[in-house]
Amino acid sequence: MIVSLYQNNPRFGKVPDNLDQLLRAVGPHKFDLLVLPELFATGYLFADFNQAFLLSDEAGKGYLFESIRKLAAEKNSLIIYGFPERRGKRLFNSSIAVFPDGQYLLYQKSHLFDTEKEIFSPGESGFSAFSFRGARIGMMICFDWRFPEAARKLTLLGAQIICHPSNLVLPHCPDAMITRALENAVFTITANRIGEEKRPGLTLRFIGKSRIISPNGAILAQLDSEQTGFIAVDINPELADNKRVTANNDLLADRRPELY
Amino acid sequence: MIVSLYQNNPRFGKVPDNLDQLLRAVGPHKFDLLVLPELFATGYLFADFNQAFLLSDEAGKGYLFESIRKLAAEKNSLIIYGFPERRGKRLFNSSIAVFPDGQYLLYQKSHLFDTEKEIFSPGESGFSAFSFRGARIGMMICFDWRFPEAARKLTLLGAQIICHPSNLVLPHCPDAMITRALENAVFTITANRIGEEKRPGLTLRFIGKSRIISPNGAILAQLDSEQTGFIAVDINPELADNKRVTANNDLLADRRPELY
Repeated sequence: MIVSLYQNNPRFGKVPDNLDQLLRAVGPHKFDLLVLPELFATGYLFADFNQAFLLSDEAGKGYLFESIRKLAAEKNSLIIYGFPERRGKRLFNSSIAVFPDGQYLLYQKSHLFDTEKEIFSPGESGFSAFSFRGARIGMMICFDWRFPEAARKLTLLGAQIICHPSNLVLPHCPDAMITRALENAVFTITANRIGEEKRPGLTLRFIGKSRIISPNGAILAQLDSEQTGFIAVDINPELADNKRVTANNDLLADRRPELY
Repeated sequence: MIVSLYQNNPRFGKVPDNLDQLLRAVGPHKFDLLVLPELFATGYLFADFNQAFLLSDEAGKGYLFESIRKLAAEKNSLIIYGFPERRGKRLFNSSIAVFPDGQYLLYQKSHLFDTEKEIFSPGESGFSAFSFRGARIGMMICFDWRFPEAARKLTLLGAQIICHPSNLVLPHCPDAMITRALENAVFTITANRIGEEKRPGLTLRFIGKSRIISPNGAILAQLDSEQTGFIAVDINPELADNKRVTANNDLLADRRPELY
């Protein structure tokens, strides 16, 4: 299974431009799974709720979804991307997994970071794992990494590949994802962005360093902090079914839930 | 509070020699807390249960405990060390925290590594946190690191400093402890050993790299893989009470237990 990610540098609020950037970047490539960053087409640093609301979409509707649905069909692949989700009068920081046939599954970010709390509601979807071409896939978003319960829950639900759309600004996550992969024996795909966004009194610099990591903690592919880019690796998701660290240790069977 | 560790290179089965090595190494130093490796005075690779049984002690009894009790009194410090604990006909891979007045608290390793399962019973003590000089301290042992639930449980119990006697042979733990510190905003003290042990068909090389890490993931002090050594740093344990990552994020308050 060819899994991939695109590390972008979106122009804030320019959804069609950012989509074009994506289409140009991934156009030449083949992949089964493509993971895109958190809020990849809108940008991150909304001035306020109203601005985010204007840039939001209902799940499974709108120009952004239709464009990705078309790409998923053309590429015959699963595409996961982050977007501001409108539901009634509320917004969620969500990711969506779009299948080649246009069906989709949604995840709403469980752990909101910093000023996101001024705009988004805490996710209500919870974590889930689903199947695609024989692989079991789960989603978490950016700051969810900081809570080991998120990746653990996805693993206990059977996820072999954790897809992790991100807009990272703190330096710790890329290395911490090695720990997340190791402690769960899963593949992780962290799709981050680069560049800078400003609003009065706040400048954010996004750190890039998107990574695909194997269940034994090896970095299979990575990007730096300076450039956009596409990376893809051919993996066997079933490697994540082997939770054995030694002949006598199984990472899930050895858990002691009665002590936690 | 001066917290410290000693990275040793024990001679298998030579408890008095290994104690002498320790006393020489820490003799010149002052510290409030000293963390020693897992099974630091006996060595690790027992040939079988009977050999381990002969080298074991009941908690709070025996030559090894009396020697450490004396050192804790002389140094007016808390000393944590790993030893094979005999309880009836069973053995546990345990650590003990010895107070200056000779009182002690016990922890039995929850997650046994590889061939340890042939010798030791899974720990029954569970995790706990206790107070010393105003700091709250917890213990876990070596392979417990691989299960994020261990350090998380200690943190939820109030531990500011996680003391982590180890005999590491795999390469991942020293870096993963940065994640453990970051995700819980606690100090971690991993006391490992160096050297090699053999028994027919099995050679283990211990990786050293003992580390003291701060709640923000900084390595405050560390040793390499080649030499024994003592390191100490002066810390303010209360820094671990600040679970705020940003003005809007608290690592414990932001947890979503209903989703895990």
